Amino acid sequence: MGYLSISDLTTLFLAIAVLLGFARILGEVARKLHQPAIVGEIMAGIILGPTILGGMFPELMHGLFPLPDRIDLAIGDVHPVAWAFDGLITLSIVLFLMVAGMEVDLNIAIQQGRSALAVALVGIAFPFAIGFAAAWYSPFLFGYDPGSGEEPVSRLIFALFFATALSITALPVIVKILMDLNLFKTDMGMIVVTSAIINDLVGWMIFAIILSMIGAEKGLPVQYTIVLAVAFTVFVLTVGRWLVHRCLPFLQAHTSWPTGVLAFAIVMALLCATATEWMGIHAIFGSFLFGIALGDSRYLRERTRTTIEQFISSIFAPLFFASIGLHVNFIANFNFLLVVAVLIIATIGKVIGCGLVANWVGMNKREAWAIGFGMNARGAMEIILGLLALQFGVIGEELFVALVIMALVTSMTSGGIMSRILKRGKAIHFTQFLGKNLWKSPVIATEREDAIRELVDISARHANVSPGVITEAVLRREAVIPTGIGKGIAIPHARIENLPSPVIALGISPKGVDFDAPDGLPAHVIFLILTPKRDDGAQLQILSSISRLAQRKDFVDQLSNAENFTVMLAHIRAMEQEPTH
Amino acid sequence: MGYLSISDLTTLFLAIAVLLGFARILGEVARKLHQPAIVGEIMAGIILGPTILGGMFPELMHGLFPLPDRIDLAIGDVHPVAWAFDGLITLSIVLFLMVAGMEVDLNIAIQQGRSALAVALVGIAFPFAIGFAAAWYSPFLFGYDPGSGEEPVSRLIFALFFATALSITALPVIVKILMDLNLFKTDMGMIVVTSAIINDLVGWMIFAIILSMIGAEKGLPVQYTIVLAVAFTVFVLTVGRWLVHRCLPFLQAHTSWPTGVLAFAIVMALLCATATEWMGIHAIFGSFLFGIALGDSRYLRERTRTTIEQFISSIFAPLFFASIGLHVNFIANFNFLLVVAVLIIATIGKVIGCGLVANWVGMNKREAWAIGFGMNARGAMEIILGLLALQFGVIGEELFVALVIMALVTSMTSGGIMSRILKRGKAIHFTQFLGKNLWKSPVIATEREDAIRELVDISARHANVSPGVITEAVLRREAVIPTGIGKGIAIPHARIENLPSPVIALGISPKGVDFDAPDGLPAHVIFLILTPKRDDGAQLQILSSISRLAQRKDFVDQLSNAENFTVMLAHIRAMEQEPTH
Repeated sequence: MGYLSISDLTTLFLAIAVLLGFARILGEVARKLHQPAIVGEIMAGIILGPTILGGMFPELMHGLFPLPDRIDLAIGDVHPVAWAFDGLITLSIVLFLMVAGMEVDLNIAIQQGRSALAVALVGIAFPFAIGFAAAWYSPFLFGYDPGSGEEPVSRLIFALFFATALSITALPVIVKILMDLNLFKTDMGMIVVTSAIINDLVGWMIFAIILSMIGAEKGLPVQYTIVLAVAFTVFVLTVGRWLVHRCLPFLQAHTSWPTGVLAFAIVMALLCATATEWMGIHAIFGSFLFGIALGDSRYLRERTRTTIEQFISSIFAPLFFASIGLHVNFIANFNFLLVVAVLIIATIGKVIGCGLVANWVGMNKREAWAIGFGMNARGAMEIILGLLALQFGVIGEELFVALVIMALVTSMTSGGIMSRILKRGKAIHFTQFLGKNLWKSPVIATEREDAIRELVDISARHANVSPGVITEAVLRREAVIPTGIGKGIAIPHARIENLPSPVIALGISPKGVDFDAPDGLPAHVIFLILTPKRDDGAQLQILSSISRLAQRKDFVDQLSNAENFTVMLAHIRAMEQEPTH
Repeated sequence: MGYLSISDLTTLFLAIAVLLGFARILGEVARKLHQPAIVGEIMAGIILGPTILGGMFPELMHGLFPLPDRIDLAIGDVHPVAWAFDGLITLSIVLFLMVAGMEVDLNIAIQQGRSALAVALVGIAFPFAIGFAAAWYSPFLFGYDPGSGEEPVSRLIFALFFATALSITALPVIVKILMDLNLFKTDMGMIVVTSAIINDLVGWMIFAIILSMIGAEKGLPVQYTIVLAVAFTVFVLTVGRWLVHRCLPFLQAHTSWPTGVLAFAIVMALLCATATEWMGIHAIFGSFLFGIALGDSRYLRERTRTTIEQFISSIFAPLFFASIGLHVNFIANFNFLLVVAVLIIATIGKVIGCGLVANWVGMNKREAWAIGFGMNARGAMEIILGLLALQFGVIGEELFVALVIMALVTSMTSGGIMSRILKRGKAIHFTQFLGKNLWKSPVIATEREDAIRELVDISARHANVSPGVITEAVLRREAVIPTGIGKGIAIPHARIENLPSPVIALGISPKGVDFDAPDGLPAHVIFLILTPKRDDGAQLQILSSISRLAQRKDFVDQLSNAENFTVMLAHIRAMEQEPTH
C-alpha cells in the first residue's frame, strides 16, 4: 500500500473486477449448456484479450489491462499494474493447485493398488510414446520453433514436453464427470480416479524434470533439481503428511478457529511453493504436493476444507483461467491442421492405451472404453502445463492454442461419451424439475384429497396430461401407504404413462394438511412428484434427495416463509449444498 | 503469470508466507494474553520491518522484503516484487473493509434511533473539537510538518485530519468487546454498536472530504468529489442495498452455489472500490459501503457470510496489519511526549463526550462511563486512516507511530475498563476449564456412582479439594434429579465451597453408564462440572453451552473416538464454532 498511484489502483481493481465478473458470467453460461465452467472462464479471457476486444478496440483493451503483448518476452518496461496483476495471478494458480491437491486421496490410490497402477502407467506410457514419436519425427508439424526462447530449445526437449502434454490427465474434471454420472463410488470410478492421481503425480514429475533440463534461469544444475524434486515429493507425501496430520488437531485445539488452520494452510502452501520454485521446478508443484498432504488428513474438518475450496475455486481459479486469454491471440495463432493433429494423437494415445490395459486387468469391453474416454479429459492441468511451456519458450503460441483447444474439447466430450458407452443417465437434481408455474403458495385446501387436486391442476397443465389420470394414480398410491413423512412434509407421488420427463409441483399450506404422517403433524410443505412410467431411477432419486433435505430442522420453515419462487429455490439450492450435522 | 522472474516469485511467496505466518503466530500469542489479535499482527510487522530486523540485519530484511524505504515517496525505481506486494496488500485492505462493512447493521441503527444518534454525533463532535483546537493552536507539538508531501499541507488540513483521527471509533473491536462481556444484545450494547456505526460512517465521510481537499493526485475538483462521495454513499445504502437484496436470491437460485454469490461479492466490492478511488476518495470507502449493503440482506446465507469473513479475516487482514510495520521504524519515530499527548487528548475527548451525552439521554452514571470507554476503542480503523494520511503526506511518521500506539492502547484497555466499571465478568467458554489431566478415557466403571467417583478423583487432585466433599455434593444433586440429558450424555454437577474456579472433568465410557436419561440411553460422554459456590453464572453458562453442543448428532461420536486429548479438544472447539441446522 503506497507505491501504486491512485490511477494504478483504479486500473488494477477494475481489471480484476471485470475479468472475474465476466469469467463467472460465462462460467455460468457454460454450466447452463452442461459444460464445465472452465470453458466459459477461458472464453471470457479470450473475448477480453487480444483475440476479440484487442482486435476491435486495442486502446480499450490496453487501458483495461495494461499488460505486455507477449508472455514469454524478456521484459524491459513493464507497467506497475502488470507486475501487481502478474503477482496476483501467479498466487491464484498456486492456491488453485493446492485445492487440486486436496482432492487427491492417497489412501484410495493405495487401496486400488495394482489395476489402477497398471492403467495409470500404461495410460502415461502409451500416449507418451506416441507423442514423443510424433514430435520427434515431425517436429515442425507440431509447431516446433527452436528460436522462441533465449536459448534455442532442443528437439529432444520439445518432443519430451509434447509427449508429457499428451499423457496428462485432469483429476478435477474427471472427479466432476464421475460424480455427474453417479459413478464416483463404484469400482470403475475408483480405478479411474486412482489412475488419474498417479497419472497427475508422474506427469508433473516428468514436467519438473523437463523444466530443470532447460535450466529455466540461473537455477541449480539439472541433476540436483531432479534429486531434490524427487526427495521433496517423497518427503512431503510421507513425513510432511504425517506432520500436517499431527499439527491440525493442535491448531484446532489451541488457536482461534478456523483462522489458525486457514492461515496454516496458506502459509505452508506458499512455503512449499517457494521451495519448489527455488529448486527450479515451478511453484505450483510445491503447493500441489502440500495440498495432497493437507487434504489427506482426516483431522481437516469438512467446514475448513470447504471454506478453503470455495473461496479459492470461486475467486482465484476463474481469475487465473480467464487471464490465460489475455496473453495469446487465439485466432491469429489458430492452426487448423495442428489443432486436429494434436486432438487426434492425444485421444488415440489415451483412449487406446488406457482402454487396452483396463480390459487386460479385468474390466469388460464397455467399461474399458469408458475408462479410456474418462482418462482422456485434460482440463486445467493441460492448460497450466502448456502455459508454463509457453513462458519458458519450449513451445510457440500456435501449439499452445492447439493444446488449450485439445484440453477443452476432451473435457467437454468425455462425460457425454462415457455416459453413452455405459448407457447411464446423468444424476438428477430434483430442483431442475421445479418451476415458477409449479409452485403454489398458499394451498387453500385443508383436506388431503383437495390439496392433491390443487397441485395436480398446475402439474397437469404443465405436463399436458389429463388431470383425471394423474389424480387417480396419485390417490391410488396414497391409499397403499400415506405419504406424510413427518416434520410437516408430504410427498404424494405417482408414475404416469406418457410423461416425457419428471414434474414436481410444490404446495405450501400455512394451515397444514393431514397426510397421516408417523409423527401425526400436518404437512405444510407438499411435493407432488410425477415421474415417467418407464423411468424408475428418477422417482427413487427425487424421493431420496427430498427425504434427505427434509432431515433439516429449518427445511419447512425456510420453504414456508419464502416470499416468492426465486427466494424459495435459492433456499433449497443452498440447503442442498450445506452439509448438515 | 509470466513477467515476474523465478527469483522474483520466490521472493514474493516467501515474503507473504513469512509475514502471514509470523503475524498469525503473534496474533495467537496476543489472544492467549487476552489481547486482540491485531496487536500481535501489527507487532509481527514491526519486528520484521526496519524497527527490529532491519536495525539488526538490514540486508536480510531487504532481501526478504524488497520494498522502498519510505511509504510516501515519489518512486523512481521500485523492485517488481514491491509492485506485486503493494497490489496484494491494497487488495487485502479493500477486502477487509468489505468484511468490516458487513458487520454494520443498518436496521439496528435505525431502531436505536435518537439516543444512539446523540451519542454518535456528540461522540464525534466533542473529540473533533478538542482535537481540532489542539492541532490548530499547537500544530508542531502534534508533529505537523508542512513539507512532507509534494505540495505543502496546510495547517487547516492537518488540524482537520487530526480531529478526525481522534473522533473515529472501531466497530469490529467494539463488537468483539461487547460479545466478550455478554453485553452485545443488551440495550446498552445496542446503543454502543449503533453509535459506532454512525460514528464510522460520518468519520469516513469527513476523511473522504479531507482527502479530496488535498486533491491527492490529478483527481476531480474538491467540490465534485464531495458531491459525488455523498451521492454515492446515499445511493449504495439505499438503491444499491435494495438491488443487492434482489440479486442474492436470484444468484443462489440460478448460479452455482456458493461460487456465484462469492464472486458477486468480490466483483461488486472491487467495482465500488474502483468508483470511490476514481472519485478521489480511497478505494476502501467503496468496498466498506458495499459491505454494508451486502451484509444487510437477510438473503445472504450464514454459510456464505462466514466463508467470506473467515477467509478474508484469516488471510488478508493479518497480511495487511503486519505490512504496516514494514514501512515505518517505530523506535526511531517514537516521540514519548507526542504519544502521551495524543493518548490523553483522544481518551478525554471520547470518554467525556460520549459519557456525558449517554448520561443525558438516560443511562445511569456507571453505564454512561462504560459507554464512553467502549467508544474509545480505535482499533483497525484508526490505523488505516493514519496510514492513508501518512501516504498522502498529511502527517509525518512520528504522528503516525503515535496514532498506531493510541489505537492499540485504547483497544487493549477498553474491554478491561468496561468490565470493571460494570462489574461484569468475561463470558465463559467451558473449553477453558478442560485439561489433559481432567480427561479420562476410558472410564472403567459401569455403575453411575463408581463412574462419578472416577471423575471426582481426577478433579479433586486438580482442584485440591477433598474427594469426599465433592462426591457427596455431586451425589446429593444427582439424587434430586438425574443428570443424564439423553443422546448418550450425562452432566453430573455441583457447587463446591472454596473452589477457586470451575473445574470440568470429562470421562468417556465406551460401555456406557446409566444416568437415567429421558431417552433411556446409557451415557458415553460424562462431564463432571464443579463450580465455586458463590458463582452462579459460571454453572449456568457451562451447563447451557454443553447442552447446546449436545444437540449435535455427531457430538458423542466425535468425543468418543478421539484418540487423545488434543484431538478431542480440537473437535469440541470446532463444533462450538460450526453452526448447526
